Amino acid sequence: MSRRFGLSVALATAVEDGGKIALEAMIVQARRCLDAGCSSVTLFGTTGEGCSVGTQERERVLAAFLEAGIAADQIVVGVLVDAAEDAAAQAGHALERGACNILLAPPSYFKNVTDEGLFKWFSAVFTLLGTRARDIIVYNIPSVTMVPLSVSLIGRLRSTFPEIVVGVKDSSGDWPYTESLLGAHGDLIILIGDERHLARGVRLGGQGAISGVANFLPLEVRAMAEEGHDDGRIEDFVGELLNYPVTPAVKVMIARMTGDDVWLAVRPPLVPISGEGCEKLAAAFDALFRAKAA
Amino acid sequence: MSRRFGLSVALATAVEDGGKIALEAMIVQARRCLDAGCSSVTLFGTTGEGCSVGTQERERVLAAFLEAGIAADQIVVGVLVDAAEDAAAQAGHALERGACNILLAPPSYFKNVTDEGLFKWFSAVFTLLGTRARDIIVYNIPSVTMVPLSVSLIGRLRSTFPEIVVGVKDSSGDWPYTESLLGAHGDLIILIGDERHLARGVRLGGQGAISGVANFLPLEVRAMAEEGHDDGRIEDFVGELLNYPVTPAVKVMIARMTGDDVWLAVRPPLVPISGEGCEKLAAAFDALFRAKAA
Repeated sequence: MSRRFGLSVALATAVEDGGKIALEAMIVQARRCLDAGCSSVTLFGTTGEGCSVGTQERERVLAAFLEAGIAADQIVVGVLVDAAEDAAAQAGHALERGACNILLAPPSYFKNVTDEGLFKWFSAVFTLLGTRARDIIVYNIPSVTMVPLSVSLIGRLRSTFPEIVVGVKDSSGDWPYTESLLGAHGDLIILIGDERHLARGVRLGGQGAISGVANFLPLEVRAMAEEGHDDGRIEDFVGELLNYPVTPAVKVMIARMTGDDVWLAVRPPLVPISGEGCEKLAAAFDALFRAKAA
Repeated sequence: MSRRFGLSVALATAVEDGGKIALEAMIVQARRCLDAGCSSVTLFGTTGEGCSVGTQERERVLAAFLEAGIAADQIVVGVLVDAAEDAAAQAGHALERGACNILLAPPSYFKNVTDEGLFKWFSAVFTLLGTRARDIIVYNIPSVTMVPLSVSLIGRLRSTFPEIVVGVKDSSGDWPYTESLLGAHGDLIILIGDERHLARGVRLGGQGAISGVANFLPLEVRAMAEEGHDDGRIEDFVGELLNYPVTPAVKVMIARMTGDDVWLAVRPPLVPISGEGCEKLAAAFDALFRAKAA
C-alpha cells in the first residue's frame, strides 16, 4: 500500500433501546465522516464497543455497510477477542469481504503475559488465517487491555510476518513509547490513538490515526492526522473527555452534532453519561470550538 | 437443586504441540477426578484456559465428553467472553446439552465499569438465553478480570433473576469479601476459589469449590470442600503455585501425576514453566505430600 493511512474514524456503534444495533444511524454517520475527509471507517474498535458486539452481529453490520455502498477498502475491522480461533474467524470473515485492514488487539483475559506468549498468540491467529492473512494492524491499548505490546515484540512480529503485520495502532498515550515506536518501526503504518500526541507523531513519520474524536470533529482531526497540524483545542477537549468513560462521552458529542438521541445509548457494561455530564461536555466543546466561530 | 454443589475440578485443557485440543487426555483426566470423588468437572474456567478456547472448539470438547459417557449433569461450563451475544450463544449451547451449571464471568475488556452496567450486561445475557436460562453461577475473579462483582450487585441479580442466578464462584482471594458474601447470600451456592480460604468458607456455609488444585489433589481438596477440613499442606502448596502463573503450574503437576507430557503445553498467551520451575514445584509438592506418606 503506497498511500498513507490517513485518518480513520473509530466509528461509534449506534444501539437502540432494546439493545439492537441501529444500522441506518451508523451508516449515516460513516458517510458523514467519509465525506468530511476520513480515509476509512473503523468498525468495532474500542470507541465502537467492539468487545460488546457479537460474532453474528459483526457480520450483519459489515454486510449492511457493503450493501449501502460503503467501499470495502474504506473499512477497517477491529477484532478484540481472546481465543485465537475466534479472532481468526472474525478477521478472516472481514478480510474475505475486502476490509482494508484488521485492527487486532492482543488477548486480554490473562494479565502479566510475556512477549513470547503474545508472539505465539499472534502467530496462531495468522496460521489459522492462512492465505487470508494480510494488512494486520496490531493494537496497543494497555490502559484498557492491561496487556502492553513492547517495541521489541512488534519487531519480532514484523520480521516474522513481513507480508502480514503492516502497522501498529498506539493508544498507549505514552509519548516516550510512541517516539521509540516511530524510531524503530516508522516504516510501518504507525497510528497514534491519543489525539494529544497525534500531530507531533505525524511530524515524526506517523501515518495518521484511528480516532474516536473524528466522529464529531473530522476536519480538525484530519488536519492533525494528514498534515501534522497542532490543534490546542483538540488537546484541551480530549482532556475534558477523559473526565468520563471515553466511549459514552464520544456518543454524547455525536448525539449533539446529529440531533439523533439514538447515539446516547451504550451497550452494557458501559452506561450513559449523566445529564449534568452531557451539559459540561457541551459547554466545554462550545467554549473551545464555537466561541471562535462566533 | 437440593444436593450440595461439592467439589468441581477446574479441568485443565490438554493441548497438543500444534495447538489442537487433546480430547482423549482431557477425558481421562476428567474420569480420574470424578472417580476420586469430584461431583463435577468444570470445562473452560480460568484454569481450563477458557478464554483461549474458541466457540467451535468448545462445542467439539463438550460433544466429545458427552460421547465418552461423562454425564451432562456432571459438567459445568465456563463462559468468559465479553459480547452478550457470544456469551448467550456459548451458555445456551451448553445448557441445551444438559450442563448442570454455567460459570459466567463478567465482561472484562472495559475497566472501571459500574454495578449498573454489569447488572445490565448479565440481564442482556439472560434475555438472550430466554427460556434456556438456568443454573448460572456468576464468577468473581477480579485479579484476572479486573472487574469485581460487589455483594450488592449479586443481591440485585439474585432478586431480579431468582430462578436463574443460583450461585457465585468467589476467586477474589479476599477473605473479608468472602465472609460478607456468605453472610448476605449464604443460601446461594457460594464456591470458594482460593483453596486457602476453602475449608473456612465451607464451615460458614459455602457449598464447595471449583478448584484447579483438584486436578492433582482431588481427595485432599474434597475433604476441604465437602467437610470443611483444614489442610495446611494445601494452603502451603497454593502459596508455592502462586510463585508462577497458576494455569501452567497446575499443568506441571498434572503432567507429573499422569506421566503424560501433553499436559506441559499451554495455549498462548500463556507459556510453559521453565524446567527449573517445574523442579521447584515438584520438590515443594514432595516435601508437603510425600514426606508424610513415606
